[in-house]
Amino acid sequence: MCRWLAYSGTPIRLEELLVKRDRSLIDQSLHARQGATTTNGDGFGVGWYEEGEGPRVYRSTHPAWNDRNLRELAAGISSPLFCAHIRASTGTAIQETNTHPFRHGRWLWMHNGLIRDFPRVRRELVLAVDDSLFPSIEGTTDSEAMFYLALTFGLESDPVDAVERMVGFVEETGRKHGVADPIQMTIATTDGRSIWAFRYSSEGDSRSLYFSTRMDTLKALHPEIEELVSLSDETRVIVSEPLGDLPGAWNEAPESHVGIVQPGADELRPFTPRLP
Amino acid sequence: MCRWLAYSGTPIRLEELLVKRDRSLIDQSLHARQGATTTNGDGFGVGWYEEGEGPRVYRSTHPAWNDRNLRELAAGISSPLFCAHIRASTGTAIQETNTHPFRHGRWLWMHNGLIRDFPRVRRELVLAVDDSLFPSIEGTTDSEAMFYLALTFGLESDPVDAVERMVGFVEETGRKHGVADPIQMTIATTDGRSIWAFRYSSEGDSRSLYFSTRMDTLKALHPEIEELVSLSDETRVIVSEPLGDLPGAWNEAPESHVGIVQPGADELRPFTPRLP
Amino acid sequence: MCRWLAYSGTPIRLEELLVKRDRSLIDQSLHARQGATTTNGDGFGVGWYEEGEGPRVYRSTHPAWNDRNLRELAAGISSPLFCAHIRASTGTAIQETNTHPFRHGRWLWMHNGLIRDFPRVRRELVLAVDDSLFPSIEGTTDSEAMFYLALTFGLESDPVDAVERMVGFVEETGRKHGVADPIQMTIATTDGRSIWAFRYSSEGDSRSLYFSTRMDTLKALHPEIEELVSLSDETRVIVSEPLGDLPGAWNEAPESHVGIVQPGADELRPFTPRLP
Amino acid sequence: MCRWLAYSGTPIRLEELLVKRDRSLIDQSLHARQGATTTNGDGFGVGWYEEGEGPRVYRSTHPAWNDRNLRELAAGISSPLFCAHIRASTGTAIQETNTHPFRHGRWLWMHNGLIRDFPRVRRELVLAVDDSLFPSIEGTTDSEAMFYLALTFGLESDPVDAVERMVGFVEETGRKHGVADPIQMTIATTDGRSIWAFRYSSEGDSRSLYFSTRMDTLKALHPEIEELVSLSDETRVIVSEPLGDLPGAWNEAPESHVGIVQPGADELRPFTPRLP
Repeated sequence: MCRWLAYSGTPIRLEELLVKRDRSLIDQSLHARQGATTTNGDGFGVGWYEEGEGPRVYRSTHPAWNDRNLRELAAGISSPLFCAHIRASTGTAIQETNTHPFRHGRWLWMHNGLIRDFPRVRRELVLAVDDSLFPSIEGTTDSEAMFYLALTFGLESDPVDAVERMVGFVEETGRKHGVADPIQMTIATTDGRSIWAFRYSSEGDSRSLYFSTRMDTLKALHPEIEELVSLSDETRVIVSEPLGDLPGAWNEAPESHVGIVQPGADELRPFTPRLP
Repeated sequence: MCRWLAYSGTPIRLEELLVKRDRSLIDQSLHARQGATTTNGDGFGVGWYEEGEGPRVYRSTHPAWNDRNLRELAAGISSPLFCAHIRASTGTAIQETNTHPFRHGRWLWMHNGLIRDFPRVRRELVLAVDDSLFPSIEGTTDSEAMFYLALTFGLESDPVDAVERMVGFVEETGRKHGVADPIQMTIATTDGRSIWAFRYSSEGDSRSLYFSTRMDTLKALHPEIEELVSLSDETRVIVSEPLGDLPGAWNEAPESHVGIVQPGADELRPFTPRLP
Repeated sequence: MCRWLAYSGTPIRLEELLVKRDRSLIDQSLHARQGATTTNGDGFGVGWYEEGEGPRVYRSTHPAWNDRNLRELAAGISSPLFCAHIRASTGTAIQETNTHPFRHGRWLWMHNGLIRDFPRVRRELVLAVDDSLFPSIEGTTDSEAMFYLALTFGLESDPVDAVERMVGFVEETGRKHGVADPIQMTIATTDGRSIWAFRYSSEGDSRSLYFSTRMDTLKALHPEIEELVSLSDETRVIVSEPLGDLPGAWNEAPESHVGIVQPGADELRPFTPRLP
Repeated sequence: MCRWLAYSGTPIRLEELLVKRDRSLIDQSLHARQGATTTNGDGFGVGWYEEGEGPRVYRSTHPAWNDRNLRELAAGISSPLFCAHIRASTGTAIQETNTHPFRHGRWLWMHNGLIRDFPRVRRELVLAVDDSLFPSIEGTTDSEAMFYLALTFGLESDPVDAVERMVGFVEETGRKHGVADPIQMTIATTDGRSIWAFRYSSEGDSRSLYFSTRMDTLKALHPEIEELVSLSDETRVIVSEPLGDLPGAWNEAPESHVGIVQPGADELRPFTPRLP
């Protein structure tokens, strides 16, 4: 049910994480190990920032593993902050507008999981999206609806609070319609400067989410790996599923928590849905 | 701004109207003469009925003129009632779910024209769609929204009345938001037995719409054309733009009228939008 | 490395074998059990005959599992003889012209397997294709090259002999270039009346190939299965991998054999490559 | 019959020439003024170099005018040397491998025009491609065949001579097969450092080709245009059809000539096909 990754740090070529790694994201599109589905071939997307600009987004309905353009782009583009997502549809149409990351202004949004019984609750959820934001909704996924609800609840000023309220609203709406465990999610959202990554599910058994170890620690742990040397201590990678098997490189996020990758110290906080 | 055609009568191969004719629909995708745009390359779709079954739908985002699969299908499929549409987008995304004909149950719907300032009024229009119908909306076009509003207003029991009320509602909503001439349209909708074709615009200057001459009259007019011989007198074609230049074959529908192609006598009635 | 099926007998809807069966071909595009790859998402194609016409071909670069148009077509088309193929590329580009079945005149051709080191031998193979046939080559696969070589060696008059000589030529060419085991294949080819299905590999360990049990035997074996009743005794299905688990329904073809499904008695013969 | 452009000079965003200009290339995909066809919607491609790297290539089968990814890329990528091409097929399949620019090593190649009766002469032309180059041919266009012939005749060491010999060979082959005027072409080819642009046809009435005026002259001519200020005097644009209507900005290349845009003085030389 989808895999995603987000990177922040020293500018690198997108291909370093999308293509080149053993267990890269393209690799996971064909053979994911930890997801609900091994194959994630219902489209993919990449969003990236440059200094002071962006984000730009490239999305396709083709499987990531056979898309040549993706490999070309990934080789040609360097970025200090980017995300990528490979999709396994939970029912909605295969089209670019249903492919993550979703973009609004300077914000990007990616999701792994689902809103259960979405057709039943979709109308009520979408109705709650602010007037000024509604015209920007281009697809029909639960993921995009969650984004626009979060924006409605103030994502651009207080992301954690906005997502807590979004999830609270989704859960309340779900329960009103008789859905037992309304939401399952890992989410990554970013404004090009910080990345917020959430792990939560109504049932308390969420899709996987990992943060890379602090870069200075990792360099000390693995002095033999040359490519780490050029990466700043600020550098961090967030993933649904580890890229590669480097011991000590990956740390699972606890249930019901949000990690914030930002300039200076990164944070890990409890995540508590509440009513809007 | 799109071209479409609808056929009802003796079963024929789709290719007879989609491919083979001089000035066929595929031809019009590259060089339409009468539309707002000469090129209609933003996707196409075909919907067809078989005896007691259907409709089936084939939709693509590629231009009709270069799609080989379309030619194969059109050669392989015979039908007594079918529609086809070639798209020139008025702003919404190029994706199959934004391509006509739209389908709901046994009904198909196609549209040429637009709802002006659609982003501004979209939310209000879409939220008037009945709860039970809302989950079926898969795209983001004005055309699809009109379909679901018409279904909400009773398309399945009284199509003319439902579309009159849909247009009334769209015009009222538009004017509320300061839009001068809210709607421009030719519409074709069918349940596989009859076809309703509407021509209307708020400004009273609508996209073109033609009905073929009664088949018995046409056969008398053109005894030299062999292929007409096998067509029943019931056979009728409705088009945005004539297929070919056969004298006496095409009759322009008047402004603000609806034509009904049905078993037995066909009708032409005034079309008067009213509030729902 | 691809899965395919071919059907001959009482006309049925394509969806009966492509969509509906447990372990249908669409199912195998996502989770094949016996192929070299579990995922076959690099495109798919269908070819079908009608009484005295065809074949028509529908090919797409999208994975079979998420293509709506395929399901529509499969529901809408009935045929007494059809083939379908789902692709896992062995290196060549993902494009419709590299998707099976390939068509030439009334003939269709599908292949599972590969010509090893194809880039090395491709030129020599392709240049052995007859002048009159060369312009019809539209793609770059080994599979299509094999088809055009077989046509060059007389497929249209003596299919078994032509394919024996094609394989002999491919093996000789391969060995000349230092390739140990030049060819791995199951092949299905048909002229709309009979189907020839080959199983062979240079290494004597070929991709799987199954024929359905004679329909009269199968009906006797499984009187409880109603849908068999309407199928003629002539009806036969040939597959890379069984559709479903019905006991006694599937018979593996032996190595180095060709099965011929034809009006009257079907045959199973040894297959012996020879030099052209 | 296609439009293309090539740029060399101060690094700029691709969108400056592909999207933003009035009469940009995307614009010409929908409404070209000078080409054999007004619509060039059978795919497009972009190739670009970075300092010491590349080229990277992005190709699509969709029309340029409705491809969002193209606009994103064009906004996100800066390059000192890039080409772009929009396609109107002269018969061969619509697929990425038939879309220009073609790439081989550090070289890119684009073509507007055709080899007449290509199916008839294709085999002989392709046979003449060097053994070592043959495996790199991925499509079925005349344009790509011309590229690989030019490479065979030494494009990488003496481009003008190689293309003269390629054209000589194509003309000789054509005439042998009874084709009156075998070749019609403008061609752009580049190694990332220089660009060679050819204008020639057997009939002496070639597709259009323009070079931008020397940048220092243009700046003097149009001091009011701010954006020219940042462009080096080395900057040059080569196009099938002018981008915009700026007086004095565009100079038509004479028949049977080749222009060379290179570090230092650019050249214009007669182009004389000869036998290889």
